[in-house]
Amino acid sequence: MDSEQAMPSTSTTHLTPFKYSNRVLLKTILDRRDGGPELIGQRVLIGGWVKSSKEVMKHPPPPPPAADHGPGHEPEPKSDVSCVEILQSRIPFLRTIVKVLGGSSSNNPLRERLDAVFKPAPPSTAFLKVSDGSCAASLQVLVESSVVPPCQLLHTGTSITVEGVLQQSSVQGKNVIELKVDKVLHIGTVDYSKYPLSKKRVPIDKLRECFHIRARTTTVGSVMRIRSTLTFGAHTFCHNHGQKEEPQAIAEIEGVSLEAIKAAAKEKSSLVEELKRTDSNKEALAAAVQDLRKTNELASQLEAREKSKPKTSQKRDNVNFGPRFRADKGESPKHVPEMLMFEVEMAFTQLEEAMNCADDFFKFLCKWVLENCPEDMKFVTERIDRNRIDRLQSVISSSFERISYDEALNILNKVTDTKVETKLQWGAALTEEDLSHLSEEIYKKPVIVYNYPKAAKPFYVRLNDDGKTVAAFDMIVPKIGKLISGSQNEERIHILSTRIKDLGLPREQYEWYLDLRRHGTVKHSGFSLEFDLMVLFATGLTDVRDAIPFPRSYGKANF
Amino acid sequence: MDSEQAMPSTSTTHLTPFKYSNRVLLKTILDRRDGGPELIGQRVLIGGWVKSSKEVMKHPPPPPPAADHGPGHEPEPKSDVSCVEILQSRIPFLRTIVKVLGGSSSNNPLRERLDAVFKPAPPSTAFLKVSDGSCAASLQVLVESSVVPPCQLLHTGTSITVEGVLQQSSVQGKNVIELKVDKVLHIGTVDYSKYPLSKKRVPIDKLRECFHIRARTTTVGSVMRIRSTLTFGAHTFCHNHGQKEEPQAIAEIEGVSLEAIKAAAKEKSSLVEELKRTDSNKEALAAAVQDLRKTNELASQLEAREKSKPKTSQKRDNVNFGPRFRADKGESPKHVPEMLMFEVEMAFTQLEEAMNCADDFFKFLCKWVLENCPEDMKFVTERIDRNRIDRLQSVISSSFERISYDEALNILNKVTDTKVETKLQWGAALTEEDLSHLSEEIYKKPVIVYNYPKAAKPFYVRLNDDGKTVAAFDMIVPKIGKLISGSQNEERIHILSTRIKDLGLPREQYEWYLDLRRHGTVKHSGFSLEFDLMVLFATGLTDVRDAIPFPRSYGKANF
Repeated sequence: MDSEQAMPSTSTTHLTPFKYSNRVLLKTILDRRDGGPELIGQRVLIGGWVKSSKEVMKHPPPPPPAADHGPGHEPEPKSDVSCVEILQSRIPFLRTIVKVLGGSSSNNPLRERLDAVFKPAPPSTAFLKVSDGSCAASLQVLVESSVVPPCQLLHTGTSITVEGVLQQSSVQGKNVIELKVDKVLHIGTVDYSKYPLSKKRVPIDKLRECFHIRARTTTVGSVMRIRSTLTFGAHTFCHNHGQKEEPQAIAEIEGVSLEAIKAAAKEKSSLVEELKRTDSNKEALAAAVQDLRKTNELASQLEAREKSKPKTSQKRDNVNFGPRFRADKGESPKHVPEMLMFEVEMAFTQLEEAMNCADDFFKFLCKWVLENCPEDMKFVTERIDRNRIDRLQSVISSSFERISYDEALNILNKVTDTKVETKLQWGAALTEEDLSHLSEEIYKKPVIVYNYPKAAKPFYVRLNDDGKTVAAFDMIVPKIGKLISGSQNEERIHILSTRIKDLGLPREQYEWYLDLRRHGTVKHSGFSLEFDLMVLFATGLTDVRDAIPFPRSYGKANF
Repeated sequence: MDSEQAMPSTSTTHLTPFKYSNRVLLKTILDRRDGGPELIGQRVLIGGWVKSSKEVMKHPPPPPPAADHGPGHEPEPKSDVSCVEILQSRIPFLRTIVKVLGGSSSNNPLRERLDAVFKPAPPSTAFLKVSDGSCAASLQVLVESSVVPPCQLLHTGTSITVEGVLQQSSVQGKNVIELKVDKVLHIGTVDYSKYPLSKKRVPIDKLRECFHIRARTTTVGSVMRIRSTLTFGAHTFCHNHGQKEEPQAIAEIEGVSLEAIKAAAKEKSSLVEELKRTDSNKEALAAAVQDLRKTNELASQLEAREKSKPKTSQKRDNVNFGPRFRADKGESPKHVPEMLMFEVEMAFTQLEEAMNCADDFFKFLCKWVLENCPEDMKFVTERIDRNRIDRLQSVISSSFERISYDEALNILNKVTDTKVETKLQWGAALTEEDLSHLSEEIYKKPVIVYNYPKAAKPFYVRLNDDGKTVAAFDMIVPKIGKLISGSQNEERIHILSTRIKDLGLPREQYEWYLDLRRHGTVKHSGFSLEFDLMVLFATGLTDVRDAIPFPRSYGKANF
């Protein structure tokens, strides 16, 4: 770490501006245990956008008893900008018109009427809640009408750069300090008739219609800061354990081509329908049908290949952090076509060690986010799920249940649930519901299920001595489902070859993979964490599209 | 940081095994300033692969004067495994055959002849250099023939897990300690006739034929550790400055589709050629030609869109770390189709601040890698480029030259080089050669060129007051070329709209981008660092394919 480069500490009294602009990050003002009374009197320049506002007339009426607007937690009062205010800001210009029209004669009737409408605006103060995305809280900012007419500032979403002095809060409530502005350096106005966030509170699913704007809401802002903190936490965990990263993202080119090909298939299918509908010439239709058939064939072939693809395995302990594309077109709250995976591979380790590492990794991330994102965690707990902090803490302190597939089957078959009509037979895949039942109903904590029937897992997973099961595991987390999947991988070349043959996989494509066993093989294991689901777990959100800044979906890849 | 999770420190005397296996990472033994004499007498279990080896007979002849094999720097002596040794390891089995064939009679002639050939092997010691990928150095490992027959261990590439006691090195040289093995737990043999690294030294370009194996070489191992260190450094820089990450990799789906489509176009083109060649029926040929034409059209459309794509810009300071796919089919030592970009966007900043941040970022990475990867940096300096450490140090201490495009033009036009025949006219693009000339010949250090003619940069770069130039910059680094590109982006919606219109871009596709200006616009700037070129700069390599673990190239996306 380079101490010169370090962020301005929030524990010192003197505020240091962000190194690459002269503004002070609001985080350094607001994320203080005592609310920052020691900052009173300091002159600062800040930038941010208006989250909510009100205008208070100076006299009469006297300032209303102030409402308690906790930082970031307040309902957002609708900005109340009247037409009069906008006109008032134009008074000098209107006066000029009046002069031209009616001269300066004091008994001009038009002048009198206009004077009545546009009498000098009574002095007022704009109270703005301003956020800059650096923390969940917003700063109370006061701008007197003598500095800038309030109507220029009051709309939600207006961006400002302002300078002023921090003072004791003039209203009772959570805020200890506020900023009294004496200079406005920039106003970025809002076209408020079109602004997606001008309504009081936009439901989170509605926000999915404006990915490019939604990070300005307190909720999405907090979620994205938590996500960012988790990213750095994941890198830190690996760094602490001396695992080397392959920062090359592991976008599977073939998988992506498959995406493209499936999209093409969809288009071609529409074309066929269109041709049928419009009763076009038979040749064109026949050609289109033929084309569609080929495309579908290619897609199935690629899909089969994709499913059977082994993970890269090298000698060293490796970490991969990158996107995975899914061929599966179905979307669900837990899946979008592009998901981020964090993959760990460790040489000289076996199944149990991979499970231990996965266990530690998950706990580490929970602890990391609580320690490094306390304000945002408090916010999501208040706003999204009131059990969130407790759940993370219980993960950190609990020891996860570990049961074999056989035990899982026994337990599930003992459930005297009237809904379950038939017993599960050995070899049956465990459904999402089965797994959820184990972690949510039976153990009420994360559960690791290991030693699956070999047919349930890919060919490269290590065959156990029983010849029936393989050394794979899944970590199931309440409300999330499968968060981590891992395995000890087959290091014995003859068994690997047999598996490839038995499954009818094209051996020539796996020669490079077999090479790794042919030349100095070692036991090794690894796992992958579904990073986006980890964000769901940390925040209490239920839809992965709210946890990804710009989630891809079919037909939406523009950002 | 979680101290419990921390890596075993290399400064304590007691060696702690890696948390997820019982082996001690070689790094903890070898990366010690004093070479680790305080470790003598400790029992450890290690795992790794044989980098080089020799067998030394116990008596006669006496041990030869030992050669000085510095850690990781030694030429790799070819393993010398004779057929006799292999047979010797089978002696018990052969003796059984002899017994069966000739009984135990001592004057059986066959027995006598066999006894002459297979007389008990003279005792010997296998001296192995073992690496586990955790550091550049290898550990000297001694295995007596009484523990395991040497021929099982001597081949380069053999993997072993062994246990023993650390002792003072028995040969003079750089090594202070060595491991005397008393237990061999695992041997992963090598099919040495096929092993790509069994030759003494494989040139780095030859190693590109075996991406899955090459990380076992000391050079590629060092490069990948440096790469991994740079990744964590980049994350740390942003974390220190409070910049939030968008860990979602920014694979541009459209870009990828374009890849797929271009690949398809190539295939279709081959098909057309094939049909022409084989004189097939005209209908099939016509259909194929038509199909090819359509595909090419689609590719051009996508390509045009790709080129004009603006960067996502939000209010908060953002960081993106992900792959970028290039439509450009040409490969060069500095470009492969998938490159990793590190992108920074900062709200409330202008061009100069982006240049300052880029400047600091580059210096930070140079300092970080020298401090956190000293042994690997020493290795690449010895093996790849003997000026490497000096170059990095000079970057850290120098202040980079900053010149405007106009100044660059003047300077280049003053060059009285006979090769340059015509003067550069204002507006001319600066070629790679021009830029290299500035940083390598004229200033001999990194140079930032800024304020380019607007036609040279994308539409979203901010127009300067002169109406001719835009607020873009490139950082040019000796031997690398353009390492960082950045700009202040246009925050004024009317100018942005005009630029979109003037360039004939499809406005409806940019509405979301215009929204960000429509609703609370602010000045903002950013830059992107070509991460793979940063690895080239840190290591002194000249081909980017040697700096990426699994580089993609056309027709090679299988890993």
